[in-house]
Amino acid sequence: MGRDLTALFDPGSVAVVGASDDPAKYGHAVASQALRAPGRRPVHLVNRRGGTVLGRTAATSLAAIGEPVELVVISVPGAGFEAAVDDALACGAKAIVGITAGFAEAGPEGLARQQAVADRVRAAGAVLVGPNCLGIADNTTELYLASDRFAPGGVALLSQSGNLALELQLRAAPHGLGFSRFVSLGNQADVTLVDLVEDCARHRATSAIAVYAEDFGDGRAFARAAAAAGKPVVLLTAGRGAASARSAQSHTGALTTSADVVAAACRDAGVELVHTPREMTVVLAALAAGPATRATGRRTAVFTDGGGHGAIAADAAEDAGLDVPELGARAQERLRTVLWEQSAVGNPVDLAGMGEQNPLSYADTVGELLAAEEVDAVLMTGYFGGYAASDGGLGGGAAGAPTGGADDGADGGADGGSVLARGEQRAARAIVTHLAAAPKPLVVQSMYPQSPSCRVLAGAGVPVFAATEDAARALAAMTARRAAGPPGLPALPAPAAPLRDTGYHGVRALLDSAGVPFPPAREITDEAGLLAAAAEFEGPYVLKALHVLHKSDAGGVALRLAGREALLAAHREMHARLGAPSYSVEAMADLTDGIELIVGVNRDPRFGPVALVGLGGVLTETLRDVAFALAPVPARRAEELLRGLRTADLLRGVRGRPAVDVAAAAAVIERVTTVAAAHPEIAELEVNPLLVRPDGALALDARAVLL
Amino acid sequence: MGRDLTALFDPGSVAVVGASDDPAKYGHAVASQALRAPGRRPVHLVNRRGGTVLGRTAATSLAAIGEPVELVVISVPGAGFEAAVDDALACGAKAIVGITAGFAEAGPEGLARQQAVADRVRAAGAVLVGPNCLGIADNTTELYLASDRFAPGGVALLSQSGNLALELQLRAAPHGLGFSRFVSLGNQADVTLVDLVEDCARHRATSAIAVYAEDFGDGRAFARAAAAAGKPVVLLTAGRGAASARSAQSHTGALTTSADVVAAACRDAGVELVHTPREMTVVLAALAAGPATRATGRRTAVFTDGGGHGAIAADAAEDAGLDVPELGARAQERLRTVLWEQSAVGNPVDLAGMGEQNPLSYADTVGELLAAEEVDAVLMTGYFGGYAASDGGLGGGAAGAPTGGADDGADGGADGGSVLARGEQRAARAIVTHLAAAPKPLVVQSMYPQSPSCRVLAGAGVPVFAATEDAARALAAMTARRAAGPPGLPALPAPAAPLRDTGYHGVRALLDSAGVPFPPAREITDEAGLLAAAAEFEGPYVLKALHVLHKSDAGGVALRLAGREALLAAHREMHARLGAPSYSVEAMADLTDGIELIVGVNRDPRFGPVALVGLGGVLTETLRDVAFALAPVPARRAEELLRGLRTADLLRGVRGRPAVDVAAAAAVIERVTTVAAAHPEIAELEVNPLLVRPDGALALDARAVLL
Repeated sequence: MGRDLTALFDPGSVAVVGASDDPAKYGHAVASQALRAPGRRPVHLVNRRGGTVLGRTAATSLAAIGEPVELVVISVPGAGFEAAVDDALACGAKAIVGITAGFAEAGPEGLARQQAVADRVRAAGAVLVGPNCLGIADNTTELYLASDRFAPGGVALLSQSGNLALELQLRAAPHGLGFSRFVSLGNQADVTLVDLVEDCARHRATSAIAVYAEDFGDGRAFARAAAAAGKPVVLLTAGRGAASARSAQSHTGALTTSADVVAAACRDAGVELVHTPREMTVVLAALAAGPATRATGRRTAVFTDGGGHGAIAADAAEDAGLDVPELGARAQERLRTVLWEQSAVGNPVDLAGMGEQNPLSYADTVGELLAAEEVDAVLMTGYFGGYAASDGGLGGGAAGAPTGGADDGADGGADGGSVLARGEQRAARAIVTHLAAAPKPLVVQSMYPQSPSCRVLAGAGVPVFAATEDAARALAAMTARRAAGPPGLPALPAPAAPLRDTGYHGVRALLDSAGVPFPPAREITDEAGLLAAAAEFEGPYVLKALHVLHKSDAGGVALRLAGREALLAAHREMHARLGAPSYSVEAMADLTDGIELIVGVNRDPRFGPVALVGLGGVLTETLRDVAFALAPVPARRAEELLRGLRTADLLRGVRGRPAVDVAAAAAVIERVTTVAAAHPEIAELEVNPLLVRPDGALALDARAVLL
Repeated sequence: MGRDLTALFDPGSVAVVGASDDPAKYGHAVASQALRAPGRRPVHLVNRRGGTVLGRTAATSLAAIGEPVELVVISVPGAGFEAAVDDALACGAKAIVGITAGFAEAGPEGLARQQAVADRVRAAGAVLVGPNCLGIADNTTELYLASDRFAPGGVALLSQSGNLALELQLRAAPHGLGFSRFVSLGNQADVTLVDLVEDCARHRATSAIAVYAEDFGDGRAFARAAAAAGKPVVLLTAGRGAASARSAQSHTGALTTSADVVAAACRDAGVELVHTPREMTVVLAALAAGPATRATGRRTAVFTDGGGHGAIAADAAEDAGLDVPELGARAQERLRTVLWEQSAVGNPVDLAGMGEQNPLSYADTVGELLAAEEVDAVLMTGYFGGYAASDGGLGGGAAGAPTGGADDGADGGADGGSVLARGEQRAARAIVTHLAAAPKPLVVQSMYPQSPSCRVLAGAGVPVFAATEDAARALAAMTARRAAGPPGLPALPAPAAPLRDTGYHGVRALLDSAGVPFPPAREITDEAGLLAAAAEFEGPYVLKALHVLHKSDAGGVALRLAGREALLAAHREMHARLGAPSYSVEAMADLTDGIELIVGVNRDPRFGPVALVGLGGVLTETLRDVAFALAPVPARRAEELLRGLRTADLLRGVRGRPAVDVAAAAAVIERVTTVAAAHPEIAELEVNPLLVRPDGALALDARAVLL
């Protein structure tokens, strides 16, 4: 169910402690905003010097207000924070917003102070946002407790950065986007990102959740909450490079997570991951139209009125992960019935001048494309909008919010005058009709995004952008990457009894009992043991020195030992050189037509067990051709990961080599990752190499590292 | 020297044939524009029906004008084009702009017509732009012969798409960019892209050349002209995916070139390659400040007033190919002298609230960063501009052109009022002073790009953008990829005597004479020859069946034949199975610690010989880890290409393997690519594998295909 945050987002009364008339103080900005809806609920301003603040009498303390207060905003110097919290709780506060900074982000002492405050707040049955935050706002309850004004709309914005929230707010309006709520996350001492995602998922007026986070707290829980939200979650985060990780650490003392892990969690949970505020706005604009406009596949028709725009947009669509396949004969024939001879109908579809002959050809073409079974989505690009445009085009970088019905009598643009202008607007309305009949995603790039014709489209929920790459990115966000939707989040298995023997044979035994196949092997400590082992199974043999770090590189592995004599000789040589206390004698696997994979699981402090699968052997580190997913990884998902590798062709067999048994490898991956997920004490578990042959898969080596 | 295009860009008189009062006709738009500068030169309108056009008396024919005309624009229906050209030449025209369409883009017959017209024009000593073009404009000579108006400035725009040119024109103004010239390339029947690049290189008022092209004509000559231009050349093109290639073909009948080849030519020639109109505008804005603001390295300091913006910008910079290294102790100490304790000084550098304490800290920090020896360029990102902003921010998507001195008395923004606003503008001016003292690239991302403070920066030539990714892309364009500048274009060697024997041993002999090392080998046709060959050099041997397609896959190669007996047996088996007429007996190379590379040269119809180098063997096709460059490839450049491969770690030696002799491989690549470049009759020349070992490189197989 999640925590009850009613007192936070819809309190019966509010007090701002630290309210000030000095515009350089944050308490001034918050108090000014708080007073924007004076009739909604009592708003008290508190300043220890009393007097008037913003023309109102300020109370000298919370107690001096003389009545309970449900939500208290605290914006006082650091030393006074704890006392203010105690006063708030004494006044019956059920929610506290801590603006004051100087806690976890300032070092261990600040972290301890912050934890103690959070404990007191929880013990009193209240909730705390922050400290070190910039406030909150809820447009649906007229609650304004942050310095920025957010235009109303459907986006709940949860941000660990005030300035980025401000940029997102500035970027939203030209796309017709507004906000239901804003929460500055601060240090998340009590109310966490997860709590807020869960609450916003329940919040009816919120249609999409936008997050900027550097520290995910319980990342696994965040992913779970996002996957269960039932509405789009868009995540802006940094940390792909070393510099941004340094920055996040110094900014909020955040425990940063590898970008690979965050990307894997987002993929599994169906979270749209973005890298810049601009990309976030584009994706939010794309998703604002609601789930009815999601494509079920990536087959995109690019439709243009100028060949250059068509070619550029086709490349941009492919860059964004969409397909732009040539249309089939039937679809091309249908298009020919509405276009003229010069038009291109292969995809990109190019009017090639037909628009000037008959502006309705824009609509006819969109109609045919939407109706074609082989088209999942349409990207329209180029001049459309220009005939009816009265401005210089490209204004604002994006189409504005719908401004009511377009004016049929608008002045014509540079070309063609009002006949074409009126025809273009008729075409816009006809496109809306076609969309209603065949609801598929349509995204428009126009040089004239603010034109009356484009506003007709925007008013009907069609995202319109000035930049081709934005239109392509938006369409990608509206397109399911897989027909079945996101992979989903694996449940963690119940913890198993802790692993005691972390030696090689202990790890083998653990994996063996989970059904991971290994070649026969015996651990030995002397020649008698060695000979006994050799008698148990056939050669050729492998001899491995145990308890030697990087044993391969150290010459601690001997392969292809034909028989007992070779085995004995190898043991003597290795023992003399390395002096290892014990060795493993193993049956050498048949490597013919085999490919070496790697499967590993690392326990991330935020996201828990995270699996890595990829090409093994000498190329693993060089190519880094690996894929990540939250563990445990079901076999079906493991197979997808393997088939998505850059070197996946090797698995299918190239240059006359047979295909290998990917399903067997996937089954092993499921078992290895399940074992790791059931052992919270294991920091790393790795099978490398995992040999996969045409006839099955076999683990050739394994290791584990405890936390 | 290039062709003299004076009559095209600065004619003494102009006539528009097909001038019309009908706004739906292109002849109307061109005539309207042509009349914008009536005093500059005589402008004649010709319409075969006579009467008045645009309020002027139209001549019924060129001859009826009664005086010579230097430049004639022809915008008549297709059937009348040739006659109009003849009339123009009869009137003494030295330049013709052919708007009329229906030539090469319509098929072979149209191509033949177009070529015949071009021949007649050239024979008359005149030049022809088009046909199938949208006209030309030259703001420096008040020549307006296209439908669009281009604001004056330094960019010469050469475009194969009218609509993309229009979009670029719309995008330019908010960045303070304008145009010196515009040429719609059309079918390039006579005047080519190369002619125009050469002429714009000579054109003083042109500071940068912007090209949209689908068909490069003589691509090699284009690259050469661009490399010699002495000013930035920015190329927008499509064709990375199959769909855009289809589009370009149907759009202009263009002979498209692989995106890899175009990218290689751009890299060699120092052309900035971009993929969208938006990216082109960003790069042009970055380069407009002139060559004084080029960075000599990629070490970028990211400077922000909010941790979130710093982290996002650091990632964006790294995505754009820049480095964001941690600053050294000395630089950090210097920053500490101007910042407060909360500030981060590692890189990203984060004011963390210092800006509100002292707005000049923005300037002090930029000054310290510009002065630091270890910093090549500075990317400033975040709120700067907001203190003095009176608008809502992000307007227009980019900073406007400088509008004169900023007003010190501008109203304060939402935060902090006029004290901070005035301080911020002082900081902007101080930043300009710091830049003058230490001229390095500074690019700014601001939420308030149109604010007075940002206008101070823009007025001093600092590119200011609203979007982080734009700022990062701009900075990358201002940063030399290599300290030495672009690699440069290799000169083609003089053609050698054509290769006659394209058999394996013929190709070997050709390469051997150029100094490419091979193992000893003899071509044999019977067992006697085989035994004689075996007596000439030591085993182990390799036997290859010749004149067999894909001989490896067909089982036509036997390796590791220890001696004469094994060689004989292999020959008998292979001969019985394949029946090949001849075989090659070779000394088997020692593969120990060797890596197989591939070097190939393909002759591109546009760009001539293009080299490919990469990882050889079974992984070549799977990984496509290859690099391209125009051939011939000097050894130094070949080594760069190899060291830039994704798998370059293999060359350096990984997991205990020794490094291989990359210099020897590079020397072979120079020789192979030089041979290919000297043989225009060779369509493909390939050495695969090229074995490179710690002690040298050896070609193990070779093949050639004639055109």
